Amino acid sequence: MADTERPELGVGMVGYSFMGAVHSQAWRTAPRFFDLPLDPRMRVVAGRDAAAAAAAADKLGWERSASGWEAVVERDDVDLVDVCTPGDTHAEIAIAALEAGKHVLCEKPLANSIAEAEDMVAAAATAAERGVLAMVGFTYRRVPAVRLARLLVEEGRVGEVRHVRAQYLQDWLADPEVPLSWRLDKAKAGSGALGDIGAHVIDLAQYVTGERLTGVNGLLETFVRERPVAAGFSGLGGTAGEGTGPVTVDDAAVFFGRLAGGGLASFEATRFASGRKNAIRLEINGSKGSLAFDFEDMNLLHFYDAEEDAETAGFRRIVVTEPGHPYTGNWWPPGHGLGYEHAFTHQVVDLVEDLAAGRQPVPSFADGLAVQRVLDAVERRAAAGSGWVPLP
Amino acid sequence: MADTERPELGVGMVGYSFMGAVHSQAWRTAPRFFDLPLDPRMRVVAGRDAAAAAAAADKLGWERSASGWEAVVERDDVDLVDVCTPGDTHAEIAIAALEAGKHVLCEKPLANSIAEAEDMVAAAATAAERGVLAMVGFTYRRVPAVRLARLLVEEGRVGEVRHVRAQYLQDWLADPEVPLSWRLDKAKAGSGALGDIGAHVIDLAQYVTGERLTGVNGLLETFVRERPVAAGFSGLGGTAGEGTGPVTVDDAAVFFGRLAGGGLASFEATRFASGRKNAIRLEINGSKGSLAFDFEDMNLLHFYDAEEDAETAGFRRIVVTEPGHPYTGNWWPPGHGLGYEHAFTHQVVDLVEDLAAGRQPVPSFADGLAVQRVLDAVERRAAAGSGWVPLP
Amino acid sequence: MADTERPELGVGMVGYSFMGAVHSQAWRTAPRFFDLPLDPRMRVVAGRDAAAAAAAADKLGWERSASGWEAVVERDDVDLVDVCTPGDTHAEIAIAALEAGKHVLCEKPLANSIAEAEDMVAAAATAAERGVLAMVGFTYRRVPAVRLARLLVEEGRVGEVRHVRAQYLQDWLADPEVPLSWRLDKAKAGSGALGDIGAHVIDLAQYVTGERLTGVNGLLETFVRERPVAAGFSGLGGTAGEGTGPVTVDDAAVFFGRLAGGGLASFEATRFASGRKNAIRLEINGSKGSLAFDFEDMNLLHFYDAEEDAETAGFRRIVVTEPGHPYTGNWWPPGHGLGYEHAFTHQVVDLVEDLAAGRQPVPSFADGLAVQRVLDAVERRAAAGSGWVPLP
Amino acid sequence: MADTERPELGVGMVGYSFMGAVHSQAWRTAPRFFDLPLDPRMRVVAGRDAAAAAAAADKLGWERSASGWEAVVERDDVDLVDVCTPGDTHAEIAIAALEAGKHVLCEKPLANSIAEAEDMVAAAATAAERGVLAMVGFTYRRVPAVRLARLLVEEGRVGEVRHVRAQYLQDWLADPEVPLSWRLDKAKAGSGALGDIGAHVIDLAQYVTGERLTGVNGLLETFVRERPVAAGFSGLGGTAGEGTGPVTVDDAAVFFGRLAGGGLASFEATRFASGRKNAIRLEINGSKGSLAFDFEDMNLLHFYDAEEDAETAGFRRIVVTEPGHPYTGNWWPPGHGLGYEHAFTHQVVDLVEDLAAGRQPVPSFADGLAVQRVLDAVERRAAAGSGWVPLP
Repeated sequence: MADTERPELGVGMVGYSFMGAVHSQAWRTAPRFFDLPLDPRMRVVAGRDAAAAAAAADKLGWERSASGWEAVVERDDVDLVDVCTPGDTHAEIAIAALEAGKHVLCEKPLANSIAEAEDMVAAAATAAERGVLAMVGFTYRRVPAVRLARLLVEEGRVGEVRHVRAQYLQDWLADPEVPLSWRLDKAKAGSGALGDIGAHVIDLAQYVTGERLTGVNGLLETFVRERPVAAGFSGLGGTAGEGTGPVTVDDAAVFFGRLAGGGLASFEATRFASGRKNAIRLEINGSKGSLAFDFEDMNLLHFYDAEEDAETAGFRRIVVTEPGHPYTGNWWPPGHGLGYEHAFTHQVVDLVEDLAAGRQPVPSFADGLAVQRVLDAVERRAAAGSGWVPLP
Repeated sequence: MADTERPELGVGMVGYSFMGAVHSQAWRTAPRFFDLPLDPRMRVVAGRDAAAAAAAADKLGWERSASGWEAVVERDDVDLVDVCTPGDTHAEIAIAALEAGKHVLCEKPLANSIAEAEDMVAAAATAAERGVLAMVGFTYRRVPAVRLARLLVEEGRVGEVRHVRAQYLQDWLADPEVPLSWRLDKAKAGSGALGDIGAHVIDLAQYVTGERLTGVNGLLETFVRERPVAAGFSGLGGTAGEGTGPVTVDDAAVFFGRLAGGGLASFEATRFASGRKNAIRLEINGSKGSLAFDFEDMNLLHFYDAEEDAETAGFRRIVVTEPGHPYTGNWWPPGHGLGYEHAFTHQVVDLVEDLAAGRQPVPSFADGLAVQRVLDAVERRAAAGSGWVPLP
Repeated sequence: MADTERPELGVGMVGYSFMGAVHSQAWRTAPRFFDLPLDPRMRVVAGRDAAAAAAAADKLGWERSASGWEAVVERDDVDLVDVCTPGDTHAEIAIAALEAGKHVLCEKPLANSIAEAEDMVAAAATAAERGVLAMVGFTYRRVPAVRLARLLVEEGRVGEVRHVRAQYLQDWLADPEVPLSWRLDKAKAGSGALGDIGAHVIDLAQYVTGERLTGVNGLLETFVRERPVAAGFSGLGGTAGEGTGPVTVDDAAVFFGRLAGGGLASFEATRFASGRKNAIRLEINGSKGSLAFDFEDMNLLHFYDAEEDAETAGFRRIVVTEPGHPYTGNWWPPGHGLGYEHAFTHQVVDLVEDLAAGRQPVPSFADGLAVQRVLDAVERRAAAGSGWVPLP
Repeated sequence: MADTERPELGVGMVGYSFMGAVHSQAWRTAPRFFDLPLDPRMRVVAGRDAAAAAAAADKLGWERSASGWEAVVERDDVDLVDVCTPGDTHAEIAIAALEAGKHVLCEKPLANSIAEAEDMVAAAATAAERGVLAMVGFTYRRVPAVRLARLLVEEGRVGEVRHVRAQYLQDWLADPEVPLSWRLDKAKAGSGALGDIGAHVIDLAQYVTGERLTGVNGLLETFVRERPVAAGFSGLGGTAGEGTGPVTVDDAAVFFGRLAGGGLASFEATRFASGRKNAIRLEINGSKGSLAFDFEDMNLLHFYDAEEDAETAGFRRIVVTEPGHPYTGNWWPPGHGLGYEHAFTHQVVDLVEDLAAGRQPVPSFADGLAVQRVLDAVERRAAAGSGWVPLP
């Protein structure tokens, strides 16, 4: 973009695998479809492996690569650090970046522990005083159908929230022969399904309802406790390509809670739901209406208006691609659906607009901490027996 | 039916409202579509109000009516008593009938307390020694799609059960102006959504998986605690047609549990799910496959076979109306679906076949007690605070 | 029903196979759920085979049986003749019954030829002058969701009709090893998919829109021209159980037409749509809204209101089981769906109410003739080459 | 992309509105997710309006802009001309480009007349002898679910094709107040719904079945014959912003045909299907199985295998996002769906691979002409009365 009037926004990214690829697509694409107040420049991508980082820079469209995150934080031409690494490194990188005066976009979950998350919130608060802003990447908020759901709740179309049903269902571990990887290693990942995908539905439930959870109880389960060690994997005490090693995180989490307004919420996160590939399901029932969403049909939102005549009321299948829907007017005509990565592009758009306006982007690190507290509470309850009543 | 070779089965029914109407349709219809080993005769219907019972006999097709359940139990020409009254009367009627040597079909929930249910199980055990048999009416087991689900689990098509997701969602109380009725009165109904509809999904989860729950935790909520008193209603301390009275049961229940085989189960029962009219949803995820059912599409079962090639695997939408499907071969050609009451007809068919064979029908009173124990455990946990972790 | 105040309506039925079974269930059931102004009495069922008729009377609940349709028409205690035989006998039986002063309910298609249908219309007109009434059994009109669709069109919720898409898809002939039967014999059945199932969607299209077709063009196809002769089948020049015989009707029909109001209609009827068991699909698009129905989900109607805000408009999935919906208030609570045979019960209800009121029931024989004219026009066009443009 | 080993492919694009935007996104994105054998360089974008072209170059990521398509064809650094203009200019631009030795990617429909299309096919044939290749942009072939459908047909999973049901339903003209635009002007657009969207479903039907249509018949309709003239529009004899002008194309087309293998096909294309935004529906029924696709759920393919046991057969809802599915392995993990523009990226990938291999890309201009012949035949039949049988 040759627009010389807009200030540049130098971006540096740390991490270049799955999240790095989708963030790159977002940085490349956002200025092509949205009129951004800043001109994002993809300055540098960094990672532990210098050769891999160089290949990623070439493939993903970054100007240059670097070895180690410090090289990104130190650069003068970087205004924002985009943290796409596993959760155990988020605190260190994000805090250093904020202290160096860089805005931060940090992937979820915010951290692997409450303590780390609290440190990050404190660092973000200090930085904010200097106009340096931080955001955590609960990206599914930017799916147009999810954003529309939030708007309908804000407009009162759902009334008082009575029920939230939130599930994140995958099946990639249902086969016990799937080998170990860093996501199954508590030291790296913090937790399993709970933190990786459960975190998303906790955030969605709180975001769409506009209410925080006031308490929870739940349980965790690891169905397959030993898995093969894949060639090239040397974590979890296994030797690469030989034998099996232990799974040290949860395979699934089931928990329930109460919302601040008195509604009940039930949650489930699992990697063992055979046939469900990435089913992020959110249902909300209120006194005036209901909403239902499933990411496997991500361009649809189902809305029930309880104030209609009983004879013609029914869940409306809204195809969320109209010009007046959130974000979609900048893309294609009605009925031409968006895909997974578009939400990341919307995240870039919102973030850049907030940065230009000096406005705190959402979800903030404090929002990320709120999710972290729920994860932590579920883990503690599960470790303490979940308040169980045994049956004869 | 003029078939003189089959022995008669004299039937007496107690109760004649919603359940009485559907049971009557089942007794009338079963012999028209199935070759029964006994010839059911609809001898008598009884209820508290003699005039209403007489009108019901005429409308529903019973030979005569009576005032009070005792009149049914005492008749010589009655071989089986069909109990269609509210739960607070089940124990008394069913035990008396069994002691009088009558088979019993008792609507669910089996009773309003564990103590009553245990008495009923004991009475059924004693009666069984004399060839007098008892069954509880968890009728949804006889929906063809549900029975097919059970068969697929039995055949090992689902493998080890990892997850059960069971919900019973209605919305008839979402409007706070809906008046009080006996179902909202703990003295009559025992509990609210939990026992009325939650009982069904507990039974379905245990039936389809073939596994009992080994423990639970959960919570209950009453969203609307005062409701208008309708004209003609004098329960709950209200005067008919004046002011409001208290709701003394739960509006909604959310709970989770573990199955004997190690799977996780989550449950929800509510009368506040706007837009969901009678959504009985059951999802099962196993190591080899998954199942999904929703009573709002009662002729469909969705089945995922995880052993298929990944490229052509997908949830199969099975239209459960083939000649080889459970029950359906006796009805219409493929694609001509059944309705709500057909499951009650199937219940009559199975019961009559079991009686003729001198075989214990299922679900037995012991199965009903197992459900009751789950209800009781949820209530106790909820009363004791649900093992809650408050969040800041 | 012992109600002595209502006049009796003596019913005699001719035919006792599939249609006979479902009509019997309707006659037995209607008085149990609806307050009928007449008291139907199931006097007699007749067929060619005396033993089979006797067995049917016993199984289906008729007071007695008879051999040959004449015996039904001649009885004094029969007020209405219900014709459930193949189409080649409709004209003879229905005309004789009307001349004998009996009301007639005649299964569809009205006849196997225009000439016969015209004779039947003339006979019905003559009879009507004497208060003797005739109706043809396009039963799907009485599915509550279809009736609701009609009401929404009447209320103007759809506006000017632009498009009708009507399909009746089955798959029972997709396998070439399925043997011959009377439905594949032009002499008996008149036509194949066109008349058997295409007739239904023609009637539905005209009924729901309230508009007649003004012209058509189409084509017919017989994909499998020779089929095995089943044991016991001696039609079509084959010897029972040996070799193959010719299929003399169409397997599938595709045609289009224009409605009186200028809308376009496309139709398809086939027995070769693998996986579609009884998919009667009707879609209507109008200037103000749209409707969609599929009999495989017969309790649902989908309605799009084009006058809503674009951001919240969407097809509403109406669960047609509310008390205010057509017919359903006499059955079960919301969400407790109906099945295939309920439409036949509703047909009895409407017919009995019309007879009691001395009102012409619909669809009349003239409505049946209108469908017949469409079938005939499609056959003539197909025989004449369908106005084809060959492509190089 | 700094990869110096791959030859460059200089691309010039003509047209920069809707199609230009999506083609640009495809050229930018393809190299980021796929390993291309050539390195596409976005050299120049051209259009009639120099200022608009310059703005487009900046926004869409082209190195420079030009006024008039000739400037693109003449450039030495352009190897391929991407034609994204209305249909009336396709022949002139594409033929000139081919003659200048440039490969051509031409948007559909290939041309506005058979004569033009034949000239283009001839030019493509001549060019091919020199290794200069041409492709027409029936992009929906590259939706992964559509490509999977084709593969299943090729593998014989559907057997002999009996039925194709192909519909392209939009609703943007249902409102009579929508103003005139070039798409409603026969001189520019050639035809209306028929050529604009009907062309897509003709191509899809022929592509997925692998069979050409051997004949057709059909009808066209213009429901709203006068529309307001929008400010800025001066076509169709209207003065900008004043009064109304005539619609000179069809609003809707309904037609049927036969496939080379004997199957029946029915087609519909309309801009008046209220509530259907971009519903491209394709259903195929064969002797061994069936397929169903709807672009409103573009990541799903429904497949019925008729060779499975009847009790467990059902349409499988395949989420087409597995690593082994066409194209999807280069994008995201399972369950993370793609959007509308991804098919254009896949089109670039396939085209670049074909160019590098010196292989004729598909669909060829001859494939485009085959579609054109169908459009032409439908128009001629419609003009000649559609072989109509009037009904009384």
